[in-house]
Amino acid sequence: MTIHDKIIKPLAPGCNYPSYEGEHYFTLAEPPDPFMLESGVPIGPITVNYQTYGTLNPRKDNAIYLAHALTGGSVVGTPPCPDKEEGWWEPLVGPGKAFDTDRYFIICSNVLGGCYGSTGPASLDFRTGKPYGMKFPVVTIRDMVRVQKALLDHLGIEELFAVAGGSMGGMQALEWAITYPRKVQRVIAIACSGRLSPLGIAFNQAGRKAIMSDPAWQGGKYHGSDFPHEGLCLARIISTITYRSNESFEKRFGRTLQHEREANPFAFQEKFAVESYLQHQGEKLTHRFDPNTYLYLTKAMDLHDLGRGYTSFQTALKRYQGTVFLVGINTDILFYPGEVGGLAVEMRRCGVDARYKELRSPHGHDSFLIEFEAMQSLVSEFLTQP
Amino acid sequence: MTIHDKIIKPLAPGCNYPSYEGEHYFTLAEPPDPFMLESGVPIGPITVNYQTYGTLNPRKDNAIYLAHALTGGSVVGTPPCPDKEEGWWEPLVGPGKAFDTDRYFIICSNVLGGCYGSTGPASLDFRTGKPYGMKFPVVTIRDMVRVQKALLDHLGIEELFAVAGGSMGGMQALEWAITYPRKVQRVIAIACSGRLSPLGIAFNQAGRKAIMSDPAWQGGKYHGSDFPHEGLCLARIISTITYRSNESFEKRFGRTLQHEREANPFAFQEKFAVESYLQHQGEKLTHRFDPNTYLYLTKAMDLHDLGRGYTSFQTALKRYQGTVFLVGINTDILFYPGEVGGLAVEMRRCGVDARYKELRSPHGHDSFLIEFEAMQSLVSEFLTQP
Repeated sequence: MTIHDKIIKPLAPGCNYPSYEGEHYFTLAEPPDPFMLESGVPIGPITVNYQTYGTLNPRKDNAIYLAHALTGGSVVGTPPCPDKEEGWWEPLVGPGKAFDTDRYFIICSNVLGGCYGSTGPASLDFRTGKPYGMKFPVVTIRDMVRVQKALLDHLGIEELFAVAGGSMGGMQALEWAITYPRKVQRVIAIACSGRLSPLGIAFNQAGRKAIMSDPAWQGGKYHGSDFPHEGLCLARIISTITYRSNESFEKRFGRTLQHEREANPFAFQEKFAVESYLQHQGEKLTHRFDPNTYLYLTKAMDLHDLGRGYTSFQTALKRYQGTVFLVGINTDILFYPGEVGGLAVEMRRCGVDARYKELRSPHGHDSFLIEFEAMQSLVSEFLTQP
Repeated sequence: MTIHDKIIKPLAPGCNYPSYEGEHYFTLAEPPDPFMLESGVPIGPITVNYQTYGTLNPRKDNAIYLAHALTGGSVVGTPPCPDKEEGWWEPLVGPGKAFDTDRYFIICSNVLGGCYGSTGPASLDFRTGKPYGMKFPVVTIRDMVRVQKALLDHLGIEELFAVAGGSMGGMQALEWAITYPRKVQRVIAIACSGRLSPLGIAFNQAGRKAIMSDPAWQGGKYHGSDFPHEGLCLARIISTITYRSNESFEKRFGRTLQHEREANPFAFQEKFAVESYLQHQGEKLTHRFDPNTYLYLTKAMDLHDLGRGYTSFQTALKRYQGTVFLVGINTDILFYPGEVGGLAVEMRRCGVDARYKELRSPHGHDSFLIEFEAMQSLVSEFLTQP
């Protein structure tokens, strides 16, 4: 197939996000035909950065959409340039792998509101020529999915064989099932829920407050000037704690000091190894992510509620016609396995073919990005069964 | 008994901490005889703010020391002035209550490093006439306990009938058992562990970073000028999340918006009720707590390790001669009940008479400050058995 995309680079100047040769861009909702967000606010044009892997078959029934998590992007498999960082599910995407590119046509796009090439707070608002910043409208997981649907329409794909993702990606996968119940046959949703818990909202609030309390944030108008490094770094430290687990911290660091041999444990500035690790994780994100985007995507997660707009949560669940595979992680402190498994039970009560498995790992919430061997067998078993 | 205490008010000017008529102060380590901290750093003089309830009997064998948690103080029972906030365990301290003041002599002091009348970072350094700030030496839970021992010596108490506390108070209770194994008959330690987990260190790190990233912190020299409100508020938001649980947030707030009726859920600034609650909790602390103190007390918690200075953790545990009662809370996300119960198992393996019970409550870590009925029966049962 030939894809006639408009290639544009909508990132804010001065931002250092990965960009790849061979990236695909698709633009929708060009003036005067805006995209109406769930909030009723119009937005447009919307650029969507996406990647594909494998080949769409003539019947166009082998497409799988993979939905990324909070700080991910469209590069899920081998990056288009060999010298770039590997894709976020690269060990699972390729010939003979769980998402077998000899068999499936894999699509992944950066979400609406993201900062990896799709339109978001770091993009230029064509009306002003400046980055949207905090003038960007609030978007929801459902809006992201509706934009993904437009991308698939553009690619000529009427129905998905499957949609899969973890965390915020899992929310999108579930929202696909509810919003387009006859357009997706199988759903894999890992470490996520049907509506974000107040605990999840609380941790997101703390991260947002970290960014917005940083004077360098400047109400979101930091483009071309100072940048809220400290705030974004702290937001990432908080969230990384929730993506890991005490079990993984115990295994990796225990109570070891970072400079164990020459350390004075009683010095105020002396750091435990776990602190250095988290600081490093926090700093790393500041080199590759836009702070306003962090605000908007966590807000979208907060608003995640499959039942919004329906008479009840159950009414929404009853819409889905395909098969759902929910995976909880035993050490997840953000989406408790009981919550994930509970959603499977509730879906079955609503007549949905919903299955549940627990992935056992010490690594907590992020296990779906770490435990590739277990993920490989969970995913391929589910996708290959009749 | 008559107590001849030196009454001083060592708080930094401009700080708005509770102070009570009828407070007791005791001063030790006056020059030229400093108190040697566990770090080897000398400090002195040390003022200790304390309260007592009930009467010390002639045999002086009815004394119970109650150890407060991170942001607590010496007022554990009825405050000395009736118009002040109630003590942190007031429903448990009094005639006929679990800590029965008809029977026991109750002592509680503000910890070394605290900001409620005992010497800490907000106190004036007599050498400079200015608040210590970040020049205050790092103190440990063991240092706090050693200062409490000096207070008891001053009060003429050779041996404690019991020591009890939750969270950082529980750490002190356990440290009492190890440091003075023959000086305390019974130990009640709730929602705490023998050494802080890397998860606990990580959350403390996030709180400290929130304070230290606030430009108003000024390296700790904010006295008499701007005050790191935002940083302390965020630190408290983060820790309050860990003191509660998703179960309690679900029960109290669910996914309700703060202004449900007139709210636009898609407005970026719209808050969920759980966010408003946490923001309020954060702000409340800024009116009553010193940010540098927050840094030092969380550092003391990070350094909490009963085994430090002994050939092994087990060697330390083996020292204790009395009875330990450990209480875990089923929904605690900071000190998992398995960790608390595991310490009881390890103590028994070391030959210590250690018991364990799980308090079942939706309220998480802070349940020991909320579930007074359950606490009443747990404590009184343990204290009254032969």
